[in-house]
Amino acid sequence: MPRPSGREPGQLRELTVQRPFPSAAAGSVLISAGDTVLLCTASVTEGVPPWRVNRDDPARSKGWVTAEYAMHPGSTPGRKKRGPDGRATEIQRLIGRSLRAAVDFAALGNRTITVDCDVMQADGGTRTLAITGGFIALADAVASLDLDRPSNGVPGVKVLTRSIAAVSVGVTAEGCVLDLDYAEDSRAEVDLNVVMTGGTTAPEGDTPGDYIEVQGTAEGEPFPRPVLNELLDLAAAGCVGLTAMQRELLGDRFPG
Amino acid sequence: MPRPSGREPGQLRELTVQRPFPSAAAGSVLISAGDTVLLCTASVTEGVPPWRVNRDDPARSKGWVTAEYAMHPGSTPGRKKRGPDGRATEIQRLIGRSLRAAVDFAALGNRTITVDCDVMQADGGTRTLAITGGFIALADAVASLDLDRPSNGVPGVKVLTRSIAAVSVGVTAEGCVLDLDYAEDSRAEVDLNVVMTGGTTAPEGDTPGDYIEVQGTAEGEPFPRPVLNELLDLAAAGCVGLTAMQRELLGDRFPG
Amino acid sequence: MPRPSGREPGQLRELTVQRPFPSAAAGSVLISAGDTVLLCTASVTEGVPPWRVNRDDPARSKGWVTAEYAMHPGSTPGRKKRGPDGRATEIQRLIGRSLRAAVDFAALGNRTITVDCDVMQADGGTRTLAITGGFIALADAVASLDLDRPSNGVPGVKVLTRSIAAVSVGVTAEGCVLDLDYAEDSRAEVDLNVVMTGGTTAPEGDTPGDYIEVQGTAEGEPFPRPVLNELLDLAAAGCVGLTAMQRELLGDRFPG
Amino acid sequence: MPRPSGREPGQLRELTVQRPFPSAAAGSVLISAGDTVLLCTASVTEGVPPWRVNRDDPARSKGWVTAEYAMHPGSTPGRKKRGPDGRATEIQRLIGRSLRAAVDFAALGNRTITVDCDVMQADGGTRTLAITGGFIALADAVASLDLDRPSNGVPGVKVLTRSIAAVSVGVTAEGCVLDLDYAEDSRAEVDLNVVMTGGTTAPEGDTPGDYIEVQGTAEGEPFPRPVLNELLDLAAAGCVGLTAMQRELLGDRFPG
Amino acid sequence: MPRPSGREPGQLRELTVQRPFPSAAAGSVLISAGDTVLLCTASVTEGVPPWRVNRDDPARSKGWVTAEYAMHPGSTPGRKKRGPDGRATEIQRLIGRSLRAAVDFAALGNRTITVDCDVMQADGGTRTLAITGGFIALADAVASLDLDRPSNGVPGVKVLTRSIAAVSVGVTAEGCVLDLDYAEDSRAEVDLNVVMTGGTTAPEGDTPGDYIEVQGTAEGEPFPRPVLNELLDLAAAGCVGLTAMQRELLGDRFPG
Amino acid sequence: MPRPSGREPGQLRELTVQRPFPSAAAGSVLISAGDTVLLCTASVTEGVPPWRVNRDDPARSKGWVTAEYAMHPGSTPGRKKRGPDGRATEIQRLIGRSLRAAVDFAALGNRTITVDCDVMQADGGTRTLAITGGFIALADAVASLDLDRPSNGVPGVKVLTRSIAAVSVGVTAEGCVLDLDYAEDSRAEVDLNVVMTGGTTAPEGDTPGDYIEVQGTAEGEPFPRPVLNELLDLAAAGCVGLTAMQRELLGDRFPG
Repeated sequence: MPRPSGREPGQLRELTVQRPFPSAAAGSVLISAGDTVLLCTASVTEGVPPWRVNRDDPARSKGWVTAEYAMHPGSTPGRKKRGPDGRATEIQRLIGRSLRAAVDFAALGNRTITVDCDVMQADGGTRTLAITGGFIALADAVASLDLDRPSNGVPGVKVLTRSIAAVSVGVTAEGCVLDLDYAEDSRAEVDLNVVMTGGTTAPEGDTPGDYIEVQGTAEGEPFPRPVLNELLDLAAAGCVGLTAMQRELLGDRFPG
Repeated sequence: MPRPSGREPGQLRELTVQRPFPSAAAGSVLISAGDTVLLCTASVTEGVPPWRVNRDDPARSKGWVTAEYAMHPGSTPGRKKRGPDGRATEIQRLIGRSLRAAVDFAALGNRTITVDCDVMQADGGTRTLAITGGFIALADAVASLDLDRPSNGVPGVKVLTRSIAAVSVGVTAEGCVLDLDYAEDSRAEVDLNVVMTGGTTAPEGDTPGDYIEVQGTAEGEPFPRPVLNELLDLAAAGCVGLTAMQRELLGDRFPG
Repeated sequence: MPRPSGREPGQLRELTVQRPFPSAAAGSVLISAGDTVLLCTASVTEGVPPWRVNRDDPARSKGWVTAEYAMHPGSTPGRKKRGPDGRATEIQRLIGRSLRAAVDFAALGNRTITVDCDVMQADGGTRTLAITGGFIALADAVASLDLDRPSNGVPGVKVLTRSIAAVSVGVTAEGCVLDLDYAEDSRAEVDLNVVMTGGTTAPEGDTPGDYIEVQGTAEGEPFPRPVLNELLDLAAAGCVGLTAMQRELLGDRFPG
Repeated sequence: MPRPSGREPGQLRELTVQRPFPSAAAGSVLISAGDTVLLCTASVTEGVPPWRVNRDDPARSKGWVTAEYAMHPGSTPGRKKRGPDGRATEIQRLIGRSLRAAVDFAALGNRTITVDCDVMQADGGTRTLAITGGFIALADAVASLDLDRPSNGVPGVKVLTRSIAAVSVGVTAEGCVLDLDYAEDSRAEVDLNVVMTGGTTAPEGDTPGDYIEVQGTAEGEPFPRPVLNELLDLAAAGCVGLTAMQRELLGDRFPG
Repeated sequence: MPRPSGREPGQLRELTVQRPFPSAAAGSVLISAGDTVLLCTASVTEGVPPWRVNRDDPARSKGWVTAEYAMHPGSTPGRKKRGPDGRATEIQRLIGRSLRAAVDFAALGNRTITVDCDVMQADGGTRTLAITGGFIALADAVASLDLDRPSNGVPGVKVLTRSIAAVSVGVTAEGCVLDLDYAEDSRAEVDLNVVMTGGTTAPEGDTPGDYIEVQGTAEGEPFPRPVLNELLDLAAAGCVGLTAMQRELLGDRFPG
Repeated sequence: MPRPSGREPGQLRELTVQRPFPSAAAGSVLISAGDTVLLCTASVTEGVPPWRVNRDDPARSKGWVTAEYAMHPGSTPGRKKRGPDGRATEIQRLIGRSLRAAVDFAALGNRTITVDCDVMQADGGTRTLAITGGFIALADAVASLDLDRPSNGVPGVKVLTRSIAAVSVGVTAEGCVLDLDYAEDSRAEVDLNVVMTGGTTAPEGDTPGDYIEVQGTAEGEPFPRPVLNELLDLAAAGCVGLTAMQRELLGDRFPG
C-alpha cells in the first residue's frame, strides 16, 4: 500500500532552504521539508548563563548553546496561542542537547549561541527539522565569529566538532516509514525521533553516524524489538541523506 | 543635507511583498520596507471573545478583529527575549484599533480574525508597517470567507469598508522626513505615527484619506504647531503612496 | 445643542486640589476635574534602574522619572479588579514620557522619582488629569530635594525645565469639545489627548505651549484634517488654562 | 515613663473620618487614627464566587463578603512596590473573616460585597483600623441596598447582625499599651491584635463585646499568661471606645 | 457527650514519629497525630536572604530560619492541587515565626535553615503539628552543624535557646476540647491555635510555658472571655504533654 | 572493574515498598531502589479534562490518566526549590504517557486518575522508578473503583490491560550497566531510559516485554549501534525483574 504522499517507505520529503533569511541574527535559515516550514536563527551574545560562569576568571568561561522552540500562531489551523507549553519545553530541551553535542565549548569561549526554531507551517516532523536546520544556522553563527581562522601560521580552533542531523521514523498502516508528514504522524502506532552525527555517502555504500538521541514512543500498541531495529535502520539512512544536504550547503563550514 | 539613506524627505522606503508566505493562516504576507521585515498573518477562528458575545443569540454575535505584535528573537542585534512587554502591548493595541476601523462587524459575523505581526528584522517603523501589511493579510482572510459573494442575484455584504495604511514621520537633523529607518529614528527629535484611510492618486492631484490614529511624541525638544502641520502633510502623502501599493496588490479584494 | 454638563465647548471642568494629601511621599496631590478624582504622589528613591546606571561611576548616574497608573477598585461601578492591564500599561507609559520632558536628569542626579497616579473616581479624562496633577506632585518632590537652592552666592541648578499640562478634546454630537466627561467620552466619535508645555496667559492674548504628545483616535468615523485642526486649537487653549492653575498653586516652585 | 506620643497606656489615637470619600463604591470612608490613614471602600457586585453558588437555584445563593488589603506606594518612606505579598495576604484574610462575622448571608442574598482597604499613610495598626473602618464602609454599602426597609408593615430583614471593631495592644518599654503607633510597634516585645463585637458604654460601667479574632505574637521574649490577660483587658476597653465612635457615625445604620 | 474519637476533652491524639525519614535534609521527621501525618525536613544552606546580609561583613551575617508549608496532592480526598494559596502562605508565616523564637541567630551564623512541612494526610491540626514536628527536625539540623560542641575546654554556643510546641483547641458541641481532628474541627464554633515554649512536667504539678503565638477565630458565634480562658488552659496543658514527647525523643539535643 | 556499588553490570538495586503509605489517595506507595526513594500516589477524581469531554454525552466521556513529578525540597543536598521546571515537565509527560499505555479508557469511564510522583530522596533513576512505582499505585486506585467485579455472572471489564515497568541503563567507565545510581549516572557517557510492558520469567528463559518508550541521550561521546543494542538487552532483562516484583506485590490486581 503506498504512502499518502506517494513516497517510498525510505524516502525523505523534498528539502528546500532559504539562507540567509532576513534577520539580525548571525545565522538564519528558512528550511522546508514538504509542507513543514521552520525559521531557524542562531544569535550570539557575550557571556554565559550564571551557573556556567568560571568563578576564577569569568572571561575564560566555556561557552554555551541553547535552543528555543515556538510555534507561530499561524502555523496550525485554528491559531496556536503564543507562549511555551509542556510540549515546547520538552522539544527545546531536545534541540539544545542535540546541538550541544556538536560544539567544543572551550573553543567557543565566553559566548552563548541561542538557536531559535520557529515553526511557520506545521506538517509533522517539526522537532527533527528544527535540529537539522538549527545545525545550519549554528554553523553560520560559528563562522561569523571567525574563530577558526589560522593566524601567524597557527591553525585556528575548531568550534564545530561534528555535524548533527535528525529525522523521524514511525510505524503506520503502510509499515515502517521515514520522515512522516502530519497525515501519517497523526495515525502512527509508533513515533521515533533519532538524532545522529553525520554519516558519509559513498558509491561503495553509506556509513551511518552515531547516536546523539533516540526517543521512541508507542502511540498505540507497544512494539517489539524487531520493529525497533527496522526503524533504527530507516532513520540511519535518512540522517545520511540529510547530512549530504548539509555538507553541500555549508561547503567548507561543514565540520571535519 | 541628504538623509543617511540618500532618500528625499518625502520618499518612502522600497516596499516588497511575498504573499502568501508559507502558513496555515488564511492570510499571510511577508512585507519589507527597506530592511524592516515583518510577517503578518491573519487567522480566522469561530466565535468571539466572551465580552463580545450576543447574550440573546450567541450565533448572531458581531465579529471581532484583534492583533498581536511580537519581535522575533533574531530581529535585533543582541537577541530580543520572547514575551510581551509594555511597548509590545501598546503597539498591538494600536494595530488592533486601526484595523478594526476597516471592518463591518455585523457583516463579519460570529468570527474573530487575529492579525499576528511578527517583526523578523527591525530597522525602524515596525508598528506602521505592521498596520499596512496587516491590512493586506486581513483582506486575504476576509476574502477566504467568501462572504462578499453575491448569490441569487443579491449583492454580497461588504466586510471591508475601507482600506487602512500607516507611516511614520519625524524631525531629524535633516528636517521633517517620511518613513524613518532606525538610523534616523534613533536620533529623531519628534516621532509621529499616522494611520489613515486610503486616499486616492490621480493625475490631477492626490486626495489624502482621513485619520484613524495620530500618535506623536517629542523625543527631544517639544515641537510647535507649524512642525506638526508639516509632519501631517508628509504623512498624508506617504499613506496615499502606500494605499496605491495595497490597491495594486489586492486587486478586486481592495474595498470600495 | 448644549453639552450634557451645560459647559461651553471650550470650557474646562472645575478643578480642585487637596495638597498635600496624607502620604509618606514627598509630593502628594488629590486633584479633581468635575467628578474625576485622582491621587498623584511622587516618591523619591536613591539610585536609578539598572539600564540607567553610569557604569564608570554609578554615583554620578543621571536621574530618572517613571509613572504608574492604577484604577482603585472603587473607582468605577461594578468594582475594577486590581492589577495592570494593557490599557493601564499604555497610559502609564504616556504619563512617564510626558513628565520626563520636564526634567533635567543631570540636575536631578542619581535618584528616581516615581509618580503614582491612582484613579479614585473615574468620570473621563483620567490620563490627562494624571499628567496635569502628576506634574504638581513632581514639582513638590523636586522641591523637597532642595537642589535648586543657591548656596554661597552660586545659583542652584534647575531640575524642572518647563511645566507640563494635558487635556482631552473630542468630537461629540455637539461638535468639537474640550475636557470630556464620561457621558461625552463614551459616545465620542474622536478622542484626542494632548500634552503640552506651559503656555502663557496675557491680556493681549494667550500664547499656547509646544507639543509633548498628541494621541488621537477615531472611535467611530475617520476624521478629516480640518477637524484635527479645530481639536488642536481647543486643546491648546485648555492647556493654557490648566497651566495658569498650576502656576498659581506652585508659586515659586513653578519652573521658569 | 510616658509613651512617645504622650498618650496614656489605655488611650486611643485620635480618630477622624471623611465619609463618603469620592468614589463609585457604595460605601467609602477615609479613616485616620493619628498618622495612620486608610481608605476603606465597599463595592457591591451581583452574584457570588463559584464555590458559593447554590447549585439548585443560583439566584438564591447566600451572599459573600471578602476583603482586599493594599499599601499605596506612597504609604511608606522608600516607596512600597504594588502587588500582594505574604503579609498582605494574611491581613486581608483576617479582615474578610472578621467582617463576615457581622453579616447574615441569607439576608444579603446573591451578592458579593468587597471591602477594599488601602493604606494611604502607614503609622502602625493598619490591619485593625482596616477592620474598624471597613465595618463603616460595609454598613453604608448594606444600607445602599435598602434590604432592611419594612414594606407593607413587615419589618425588613437585618443584614448586619452586630458591629465589629478591632485594635492592637502590645508590650513596650512602657509596659502594656493600647493602639500602638509605628514608633512603639517597631520595638514592641509583644503584638496582639484583637477583633471584637461591639460592647456598650454606660455611666455605670462599660460592657465589653465578645471575641471574633485574637492574634498575638511574641516579637521578642515569650510572654506569660498574666501579660496576655492584661493585654486582653486593654483591648476590650479600646474596642468599646471604637464602637462608640462607630455608633455615633452610623446612627440608625448601626446594627441592633 | 463523648468526643467522636472517644477521647477525653483534654486528651491529645496518639503521637508517632519516624526519624529520620529517608531524605537528603539534615533533619527529617515523619510525625503523626492520629490520622494527621506530616513530613518535616530541615535543610541547611550557606548564606542568608539578601535583606538579612550584614553589609559590613557578609560572612558574619546572623542566620535565618524560614518555613514552607505544602499539602501533598494525596493528602485530602479529591486531590489537592499543588502550589501555594492564601491559606498556605498564612500558615507558613506562622510556622516560620514560631520556630525563629527558639533560635539564637548570632550563634547560628551565616546560614539559613528551611523547615519544609508537607502534609501527607490531613485530619485536622496540620499547622500546629507542623510546628511541633518542625522543631524536632530543626533540632536535628542544628545538631548536624556541631556548633554546640565545647572545644579546648570552652563550652560551645547554644543555637537552640528553648523548645517550641503547638496545639489546637476549640469549642465543639462537646464543649472545649484539645487537639481537634477534622470531624471536630470542621464543625467547631471556635478554633484557637497556641504556640508555647516548653513547660515542664513534674510529680508536684506541671508548669506551662510562655506564649509565642495565640491565634483564635470565631468560626460561628463570637466567644466571651471565660471561654477564651478555658481554651488557654487546655492548650497550655497540651503543650506540656507535647514538650515531654520532644524531650524524650531529642535527648541531649533538647535545649536547656 | 567493579561498579562503585559492587553490583554486577546487570544487577538491579534492592527494591523495597511500603504500601499503603499514609494518604487520602486511593493508591499510595513509598518505593525505594537503593537510596532513591519516591512516594507515588494515585488519586481518582470524577470527570475528565475539558478537551477530553464527550460533547454528546459528558457522562460517557472516556477516562484519563495523568502524572505529576516533583522533587521534595529535602530530596537533594542544598535544598531543591519547589515548583515545576523544564526537567520536571519533561519527566511528568513521560510518566503520564507511559502509564496511559496500560489503561483501557473506555473501561475506566468518566474519571481522571492523577499519579503524583514525589521524590523524597534522589540517588539516580527517579523517572524510571516513578513509572515502576506509579504503576503499582495506579493498580491500587483502579482496584478501589471495583470496576472489574463480575456481577450477575457477567465478567467485569478490565481497566488495566497490561503492566508497565521502567529502568535506566547507561555506559560508564565499567561498560554497559543496569539501574544506575547517582554516582554512576553523573559520569555516564550514555543514559538510556526504557519503559516496557511486563515480560515473563520462566525456568526455560525470560521473555522480555515490548517497548512503550525508549529515550537515550549521549551525555558525552555519540554512541554506535552495537552499544545501543547491548543497552537494550540489559534494559529488557531489568524490566523483566521489576515486573516479577510488581506481579508478586499486586497478586490478582496484576493485569492479565
